[in-house]
Amino acid sequence: MEAQDFIDDFHRTWEFGATSHDGVDRQAGTKPHGQLRDWFSAQARAAGFEVRIDPIGNVFALLDFVDGADYVLTGSHLDSQPLGGRFDGCYGVIAALHAAIEIKKRVEAGQMEPKYNLAVVDWFNEEGARFAPSIMGSSVMCGLFDLEETLSIKDAQGITVKEALESIGYLGSDEAPSVAAYAEIHIEQGRLLERNATAIGAVTQSWYTQKLYVDVIGEQSHTGATIMKDRHDALPAAAMLVLKTEQVVEEFEPEQIVTSVGQFDVEPNSPIVVPREVKLVIDLRAHRRADVEKAREILVDYCEEVARARDITIEARDFDIRDHQVYPEDGVELTEKAAANTGISCMRIETMAGHDSVAVNRIAPTVMTFVPSEGGVSHCEREFTSDEDLVNGLVVHTEIISRLLDGELDHLK
Amino acid sequence: MEAQDFIDDFHRTWEFGATSHDGVDRQAGTKPHGQLRDWFSAQARAAGFEVRIDPIGNVFALLDFVDGADYVLTGSHLDSQPLGGRFDGCYGVIAALHAAIEIKKRVEAGQMEPKYNLAVVDWFNEEGARFAPSIMGSSVMCGLFDLEETLSIKDAQGITVKEALESIGYLGSDEAPSVAAYAEIHIEQGRLLERNATAIGAVTQSWYTQKLYVDVIGEQSHTGATIMKDRHDALPAAAMLVLKTEQVVEEFEPEQIVTSVGQFDVEPNSPIVVPREVKLVIDLRAHRRADVEKAREILVDYCEEVARARDITIEARDFDIRDHQVYPEDGVELTEKAAANTGISCMRIETMAGHDSVAVNRIAPTVMTFVPSEGGVSHCEREFTSDEDLVNGLVVHTEIISRLLDGELDHLK
Repeated sequence: MEAQDFIDDFHRTWEFGATSHDGVDRQAGTKPHGQLRDWFSAQARAAGFEVRIDPIGNVFALLDFVDGADYVLTGSHLDSQPLGGRFDGCYGVIAALHAAIEIKKRVEAGQMEPKYNLAVVDWFNEEGARFAPSIMGSSVMCGLFDLEETLSIKDAQGITVKEALESIGYLGSDEAPSVAAYAEIHIEQGRLLERNATAIGAVTQSWYTQKLYVDVIGEQSHTGATIMKDRHDALPAAAMLVLKTEQVVEEFEPEQIVTSVGQFDVEPNSPIVVPREVKLVIDLRAHRRADVEKAREILVDYCEEVARARDITIEARDFDIRDHQVYPEDGVELTEKAAANTGISCMRIETMAGHDSVAVNRIAPTVMTFVPSEGGVSHCEREFTSDEDLVNGLVVHTEIISRLLDGELDHLK
Repeated sequence: MEAQDFIDDFHRTWEFGATSHDGVDRQAGTKPHGQLRDWFSAQARAAGFEVRIDPIGNVFALLDFVDGADYVLTGSHLDSQPLGGRFDGCYGVIAALHAAIEIKKRVEAGQMEPKYNLAVVDWFNEEGARFAPSIMGSSVMCGLFDLEETLSIKDAQGITVKEALESIGYLGSDEAPSVAAYAEIHIEQGRLLERNATAIGAVTQSWYTQKLYVDVIGEQSHTGATIMKDRHDALPAAAMLVLKTEQVVEEFEPEQIVTSVGQFDVEPNSPIVVPREVKLVIDLRAHRRADVEKAREILVDYCEEVARARDITIEARDFDIRDHQVYPEDGVELTEKAAANTGISCMRIETMAGHDSVAVNRIAPTVMTFVPSEGGVSHCEREFTSDEDLVNGLVVHTEIISRLLDGELDHLK
């Protein structure tokens, strides 16, 4: 393994959309996102890959070993949250590229004879910050989202996905490769690996998640001229929902559920006007489906209670419900074996966050692997993973891909 | 009095920036605001007034009776809040125009002999919704705000006051008239007149007001991957401040203080990111200065308490402190006499809201008068005052202006 080449390349990506506090801002379809994709494509072509772009802007770098065979696919995403971290997504793409380069060398040296071809992917818009929903490119490729509908989704400025892809030169027309198996490596975004001093997480399943879109409708009035009891202020009602969303976790065992309000828009948002309306999004994620459902019920009941008490209207609507995705047991064992084989510590783990692998798992045998994330922080500028952990991940990931190229999960197809 | 002409003219203004629920959206310097100013200027010119525009975009319609004399000034503002009401401000301008037309007739018929000239004013940007601070045009004219600084204030899109005024053709270069006295009539925006079944409010003073700019700084992280106790979520902390702002009024006698949060901005405002920062504006207004100061202290202490408890940073900064403005007692009595003389009921009242008259009161004897506002609601589409109340106001207002033209407050100059 040329570990230093990988580290150098990965650190180079930090320049694209760099922020002032060691983070990156590379939202999907923006200029820095396009520039990093250009750089990645150039690196891949220079290493002998053929680059294809599909109609939802996923970038595939292909290495053909066997004429007409399907592809073992591996990768993640180069887009980020606004003021996001340097590791989330980007690590998985660059690690996949370097794992593929290593495997190419081994094949050329006659050290291995793959049953499949190999492709590295940079999925479009995993983050869903600029264009919702998240996990977009992989979901379209896997047939979970409609292509045309997805291309017409707009950002807050009214720009469509299609226009954004065109603007960075990534609205493609190539066919996506046919997938024999998929492997993705990602930072944990939690601190179980750190707490357990373990280098690799073999991901068993994703958490059950759903969102609630809540519209709090009061009445606009003059802050300076409307006595308190004549008001129907939407903001304190919405504030009560924010606090209840936080408090509801106390109904459950520790660390079994996470809840939050991330999006919160006040209308008309003028310093001297009592707010007419607040639109907010509640995010609920739990180990158990029943816990999400119970939290949802408590919150929906609370919306009714607050609306009644304050004589305003509150509408709550379920959306973005994502069932558990269980990764195949044999894939989890494959990760454990790959780690054991390379002398690197490994434990089983669940993912609270969504990943492109959750979508691809629906159409092909999928292996998901984590490396530690310092303090468990992510989606922020101080997200951090050490070079040593990054390289450990690369080593295990290369081993996983090699085994997939050998057809080790063929019985799951 | 040609009451019907006034009512017809006033109802006509409702078309400018009309919203779908009987309100108007005529924010300062927007197209519908410019169109209403054009219409107002045309009406004034047709009635024999000379129209002047000063460098901060105040529109003056002048009637000269006495060569070289100062002007009795009367008016209000034609701009509105977003989704605002049809009465706030606009009533005072159109009532002033019709009062002036009536007085012109009386002078021409030899029924009165004014000591002063007369001018109707439409102040620029009283509302402060698009460009902060509010009460802008009158404050510049009265020397309270610097002209050049004010012209360079930007809206949320980065457009300056100067550019907005140019775009609607109201960046003037005329000198403002020299003011002998000022009278303004406005809807109450409260329900004391309604509760007391009284037609006219003689305004004695404005409430003491101040704002607090609060910056809540937490840490951004992934909603789906950060366990609750690792978070430094800015939003629940800000929600606690919103609720405390509402609850703090319980420390005071009923109806002695109003508090609110009208502006509230969440960063990065993405559904799957734990908020990094919330910026909010608290508005405090009270009958007594000491009450605002006590509420402010409770809230600032609470900011510290919340910051400590949640291990985040909260910065609170005082701004826009406006001391009581006491209108001259003789002006209040003048309103009471004008009402008595015309057989219309009148009571003394304070204003919780700011008005252009608060600024003008600093440089000239000022009389402020209210008419009832149904349910006390304002800054919203269902703001309403009956034609009967509007006409009563016009009658008393005409009487007040006549007395000011007679020099009745000259001893206060």
